[in-house]
This record gives sequence, C-alpha cells and structure tokens, in this order.
Amino acid sequence: MKNLHLIALGLLLNISAVAVAQDKQAKMHQVVMQLNSADTAVWSSTLGNIRNFQKVWPGNVKIEVVVHGKALNFLVNEKSHLVAEIESMTKLGVTFNACENTMNKYGIKKEMLIPSVGSVPSGVAELVIKQEEGWSYLKTGY
Amino acid sequence: MKNLHLIALGLLLNISAVAVAQDKQAKMHQVVMQLNSADTAVWSSTLGNIRNFQKVWPGNVKIEVVVHGKALNFLVNEKSHLVAEIESMTKLGVTFNACENTMNKYGIKKEMLIPSVGSVPSGVAELVIKQEEGWSYLKTGY
Amino acid sequence: MKNLHLIALGLLLNISAVAVAQDKQAKMHQVVMQLNSADTAVWSSTLGNIRNFQKVWPGNVKIEVVVHGKALNFLVNEKSHLVAEIESMTKLGVTFNACENTMNKYGIKKEMLIPSVGSVPSGVAELVIKQEEGWSYLKTGY
Repeated sequence: MKNLHLIALGLLLNISAVAVAQDKQAKMHQVVMQLNSADTAVWSSTLGNIRNFQKVWPGNVKIEVVVHGKALNFLVNEKSHLVAEIESMTKLGVTFNACENTMNKYGIKKEMLIPSVGSVPSGVAELVIKQEEGWSYLKTGY
Repeated sequence: MKNLHLIALGLLLNISAVAVAQDKQAKMHQVVMQLNSADTAVWSSTLGNIRNFQKVWPGNVKIEVVVHGKALNFLVNEKSHLVAEIESMTKLGVTFNACENTMNKYGIKKEMLIPSVGSVPSGVAELVIKQEEGWSYLKTGY
Repeated sequence: MKNLHLIALGLLLNISAVAVAQDKQAKMHQVVMQLNSADTAVWSSTLGNIRNFQKVWPGNVKIEVVVHGKALNFLVNEKSHLVAEIESMTKLGVTFNACENTMNKYGIKKEMLIPSVGSVPSGVAELVIKQEEGWSYLKTGY
C-alpha cells in the first residue's frame, strides 16, 4: 500500500512539473509566419513585423518565416532585394525556411538560396506542425 | 481509506488515459483552410496545398476547406471550373463546406452546389470551432 | 500518512476544478481578428463577419479586432466611413484596438481615433498573445 502512495505522489509531482514547464515555455513567445505573396510590399512588411516583435519581446521570441509559392524569390539570392536584411535577421536568430516543394516546382536548387536560410520539405505542413507544437500563426499579406 | 486509494488511483489512470488519447490524436494532423477569395488562382493553389498535405502525410491528415464570401462559386456546380478535382478529393476524404450564410445572401440553394460537398451554418464560426477543437488553421490567398 | 491522502485528494480535486473551469471557458467563444488592409471592402466584410458571429453565438462570443498597418484609417475618426457601425459594435462589447506602433509611424494621436476604440502597443504581438491565451485567430482579407 505504501508503494501505491509513492506512485500516486510521484504522478502528482509529475503533473505539477509539467504545469511548471508549460508556464516557462509560455514566457518564450513562438510565432510562425506564412509568406506566400509575390508582392514585395508584403515582403517588406513581413520584415517590419519581425522588427516589431523583437522590439516588444527582446530575446524572448522565436520567429520562423515559412516562404512558399509565389513568395519564393524572397529567399533566392539573385532575385531578392532584401538579402542583407534577411542575413542580419538570421544572425539574430530568426529562421527563414523555403518550401522544397515550391523549389522543385520552380527548379530552384539549395545553392541558389541566400546562404543563411534553410528549407523544409513542405511549407504548408511546416505551418501545421508548428501550430501543433503550440506556436502562434500569422498570415502575412493584406 | 482503501476506497480513497482506489478513487485516487482511478483518477490518475484516467489522467494517463487522456494523455495517451491526446498523443494518438496528435499523430492525425487536422487542418481547416479558409477560402474566401474570388481569385481563381487562389482556388487552384488551395487544391495544390491539399495535394501537398496528402503527399507529405498520406492517410494521416484530415482536411476541411471552409468556403465563404466571394469564394462561394468555387463550390457552385454551374460556376466552378474545378468540379472534377473537387469531387475526386471528396472521395479521398477531404471535406468542402459552403457557408450557408453566404448561400442565403447570394440566393444559392443546396442543390446548386457540387453534389459531394457539404455546408455549415456559418463559415467563420466553423473556422473558430475547428480551432477550438485543436485543428490547425490556414488562411488561403496572398 | 493521512496528510498525504489529503494532499493527494486536494490535488486531484484541483485538477478536476481546472477541467471544469476550462469547460466553462470553452462555451464562451473567443476570436481575435487581424485587419491590416487598406481595402474598404475588407473593412466592410470584417464587420459582416462580426455580425455573423453575434447571430450564431448571441451573448456567447468575445471578439477583438486588431487594426494595424495599412488598415489604420478604419479607426481614425476623420478618415473612416464606418464610425457609426464601429461605435454601435463597441457598445455591444466588441473590442477594436489600433496598433500604437502603426500610430507612431503615421503620426496618429489617440484623440484622432474613434472615441470608443482602444489601442495596444503592438498589433502583431497582440495577435500572438491572444492565441497564447487560447483565442481563435482569423485573418481578414482575400
């Protein structure tokens, strides 16, 4: 019977530990942004939103930008007019991921992307996975 | 006192069972997509996204497309140019729901919709309900 | 040992209380809407969505509209053509919040906003905070 008490208490302590861990996690904000527009005004405003997050939550926000469809050139070294801005943001910890599905469709190889950015097999799947993991979602565009 | 132990243990086992059930549910991805644009490029790209989900997560993703506002013709038999694609997707388990509120506004009767699609009283309410149930949300459009 | 029982029982009752509280909260729907378009058709359709929520869930839905970027004039007294509609909605409990970041950028002072509306330091941060608190998210626009 004593063992039962210990198991019960152990489980209860575990539950409390999970609650505390969730609370700690809540203090680090996590945002996944969807960028799928060819409109360069949307590209600039996406970077503006990121600067805004960093001003409000310095050191306290994880940001991932998922770039797919018509927005892909945003991350293509020879096509994007925002290479310097994107590279300085990745140094600050912002993640930019190109959709490999879109890359295949348009014949864009990894070496054509801005060196500091990454890629994911499917942009839309990445947006879903991050939401499943508790990240907040923001759709860019108007 | 023994009863108390049993109640406590029973409750703890219940908690574990819930945790396991939630874990199982997490393996089936659930996505609700909002389609409210009259732009047929957005319609096509919505179907492209669905194909992408099915390629990445075959048999492992539930998809519901909520169609409302200016996008309604996407699901109207006489107006949509994507009837065959939509019908073959519903056979694969994708759900397309027209907003009845929009249908009333534009005088669209159920028998005017593509036969295999459904409807919901309010498109925007459906998007909220699904998020409350833990589905991930994707806004289509640019 | 008796104390241990009481602690265990107390914790279990707490867990149940939390579950009940969450259930009660689930019955009040909570929606945060993002409005960042200069297109007045999007402004009207946002108000249409709100009316739709109130029809489906009378007295049972909390709505906050976060207005930022190119949409700011929607809440500027001298620029918006929807002042009367917005004021009657705030009387019904709908919250409209302008982004102070955008206000600073465009030189809009608080006294230039429609009197019944509010503001938040950062529109995009507000959209994330509300999602973290369990609100559903809707992006307006097409």
